[in-house]
Amino acid sequence: MKKVVLIGSGNVATHLGEALRNSGVEVLQVWSHTLENATTLAKQLGAEGISNISDVKANADAYIFSVKDDVLLSVLQMFPHEDKVLIHTAGSISIDILKPFSSLAAVMYPLQTFSKAKAVDFKTIPILLEASNDDLLSSLKHVATQLSSKVSVANSEQRKYLHIAAVFACNFTNYFYAIAQDLLETKGLDFDLIRPLILETAEKVMHHSPQDVQTGPAVRKDEKIVNAHLDLLGDNTDLQRLYKDISERIMKA
Amino acid sequence: MKKVVLIGSGNVATHLGEALRNSGVEVLQVWSHTLENATTLAKQLGAEGISNISDVKANADAYIFSVKDDVLLSVLQMFPHEDKVLIHTAGSISIDILKPFSSLAAVMYPLQTFSKAKAVDFKTIPILLEASNDDLLSSLKHVATQLSSKVSVANSEQRKYLHIAAVFACNFTNYFYAIAQDLLETKGLDFDLIRPLILETAEKVMHHSPQDVQTGPAVRKDEKIVNAHLDLLGDNTDLQRLYKDISERIMKA
Repeated sequence: MKKVVLIGSGNVATHLGEALRNSGVEVLQVWSHTLENATTLAKQLGAEGISNISDVKANADAYIFSVKDDVLLSVLQMFPHEDKVLIHTAGSISIDILKPFSSLAAVMYPLQTFSKAKAVDFKTIPILLEASNDDLLSSLKHVATQLSSKVSVANSEQRKYLHIAAVFACNFTNYFYAIAQDLLETKGLDFDLIRPLILETAEKVMHHSPQDVQTGPAVRKDEKIVNAHLDLLGDNTDLQRLYKDISERIMKA
Repeated sequence: MKKVVLIGSGNVATHLGEALRNSGVEVLQVWSHTLENATTLAKQLGAEGISNISDVKANADAYIFSVKDDVLLSVLQMFPHEDKVLIHTAGSISIDILKPFSSLAAVMYPLQTFSKAKAVDFKTIPILLEASNDDLLSSLKHVATQLSSKVSVANSEQRKYLHIAAVFACNFTNYFYAIAQDLLETKGLDFDLIRPLILETAEKVMHHSPQDVQTGPAVRKDEKIVNAHLDLLGDNTDLQRLYKDISERIMKA
């Protein structure tokens, strides 16, 4: 897999494209439905930016689809070539979505949260692979181990669970950071006060199991504090209910 | 404040006691209602371990109460001395709880999650101070700045909000790590796969605002994936409801 075309120019495409190029894979083209986005990423990667999918060249070794989950099918339907190696990068989408378009289907799911604003060390990112045949899986493993030291195989069912686990561990967690920031700001307090706590909470589970290091009023079954917090949230009944729900779950766990 | 007595031997007392001793403060005694716990921590700190609160010496410069929130009052009621400097370390308890027992009341709240199993660098921990008079606040600041480079003043109302923000940013977040682990284990997947994601999610908000780096299906308003995840959680209606609740909040945010 020496030459690829990137279909998509979002956060995953950007970081994956850079990692591929750094490992010696040539990115021939970047497609996006917005030419400007395609060109921006293409420039970074020394590739050609295109917005017309019929301009995708036929001579790439693989076509990596890294577009929003809900447009993947419609982009595949516009894809102009047959029997090419088609790879998608989505956690929650089965490999089967590719099969009507090629017998050479694969998934390469990097399990990380990507923002254009922040560089990540791709070497540390788990990559989950799936392929429609063993030869393709082998060549995918070869490429992936150039990108990361944490390459595993996972089927579509396992990948779905990885994705939902990631939603809890990353997306919902980040949302709770945002709630914390809102709560602090109502009392004129800076988010900086809570940043060390956030980092320590994550670092703690790098070498421990979350169950073993759970702290806070709910796990101590300190109902007085839990109730005081519920009172404090009295003017925000939605947030109050969320606090109550999760505290009760922790108490029962 | 050269000599202190620690009332309590839990996680906060342990880490605070070590930080105090390392900054040159002498810990005279450690009290716990369990003698074994008192003695264990006392040994670490070169102090005397006691379990009878009437044995607390009268010659300390300050008495630091670091006990479970719901027993603090009853421990104060047993405390044998009057008009001593009394300090508690609790986020959600007002300074007022100390005032019936001394006019020299103060709070020193280290905003961090402590486990006995994991060392922390106390220097990086925000410490929030409150005191019943300015002289006491000054001497408390003097001690606290020996322990940490992040010392602030916060009143009891602000501290309550800090604590509830900490519950979201730390306790609930850790609980979500545990949910992620459970979900992975149902499919034979290792928690290691998601550890880099957890760390990156926390590191990202060290220099960004959480709102600016929110990712995932809910913020993309990708209802197809949200609904697929809800289906996947179908046999766990509690967890399904939690996923739905939080996703809807993120979509509306």
